[in-house]
Amino acid sequence: MNIKEEFGIRPGEKAVELPAQPDAGVYFIGRIHTPWRARKDCPKNARGSDAVCTVALDPRFADGLKDVGSCSHLVLLYWMDKAPRNLVLQSPAHYGTQRGTFALRSPARPNPIAMSVVKLLGIEGPTLKVVGLDCLDGTPLLDIKPYFASVDSAPEATVGWHRDSK
Amino acid sequence: MNIKEEFGIRPGEKAVELPAQPDAGVYFIGRIHTPWRARKDCPKNARGSDAVCTVALDPRFADGLKDVGSCSHLVLLYWMDKAPRNLVLQSPAHYGTQRGTFALRSPARPNPIAMSVVKLLGIEGPTLKVVGLDCLDGTPLLDIKPYFASVDSAPEATVGWHRDSK
Repeated sequence: MNIKEEFGIRPGEKAVELPAQPDAGVYFIGRIHTPWRARKDCPKNARGSDAVCTVALDPRFADGLKDVGSCSHLVLLYWMDKAPRNLVLQSPAHYGTQRGTFALRSPARPNPIAMSVVKLLGIEGPTLKVVGLDCLDGTPLLDIKPYFASVDSAPEATVGWHRDSK
Repeated sequence: MNIKEEFGIRPGEKAVELPAQPDAGVYFIGRIHTPWRARKDCPKNARGSDAVCTVALDPRFADGLKDVGSCSHLVLLYWMDKAPRNLVLQSPAHYGTQRGTFALRSPARPNPIAMSVVKLLGIEGPTLKVVGLDCLDGTPLLDIKPYFASVDSAPEATVGWHRDSK
């Protein structure tokens, strides 16, 4: 850990040394366009907004959208490149309590890959209209997947720390 | 596209030229241990098995598991490094129909990041016991996230092509 990283962390946060080299590479396969240009403007969570957002897929991958229009919901994976990757304990400002990185959906994590479940409104060429995002305008897209309720939906799921922290 | 790639694809499949360089790097932050050593042994989907699987997190990130034990379900992201990344149209053997890559959960995709929703059974040190995986033993782990039913569960979701293909 270097001085700059130590200096940047808040009380209650803990950083670790990251591996010297990445193990694999990802391609940015498109960009997500949202109404939010600054972190402070983003909705607190994805169901807090019914804003229609646009997913602009790199046209080279457009054929990969065949049959996607038959899906009511999609899983989007995207890259949150503005956050530190070395924090294992965090104190998110809006909770004010120290939590483990893997108990949070914070963008600060070793691999800053966000996952959002979105409702698909329509597709035109390599462009999708969706609802259910809370990320910054221009966020790099990593993947689009069909959402299968049979394996992806767990309405009974609970997050104990979240319930208790109210 | 080079000859080798063209040679390797099946009828109904289409490959594209990938970008020359990756845009970002990921770290393998652990390994997933499952009972399945070969693709043909993996369950057809994750709810097809109640096998207990083990997630072995790199101990350097162990502090990041604080509060994770209070979650009933987790989202795991992992790297499916055995699949080609250049296919935009695929004909999965068990469906026999040409589909777009982004309408499938196939490991063959530009960024081979799989997402699985698992039930958490327990945590001991940097090791988690979970149910709900269908991946190969030794699969590299990318991320662990809390599953929030409020944003991640969409029981009403449908995948038209899948229903129609029965």
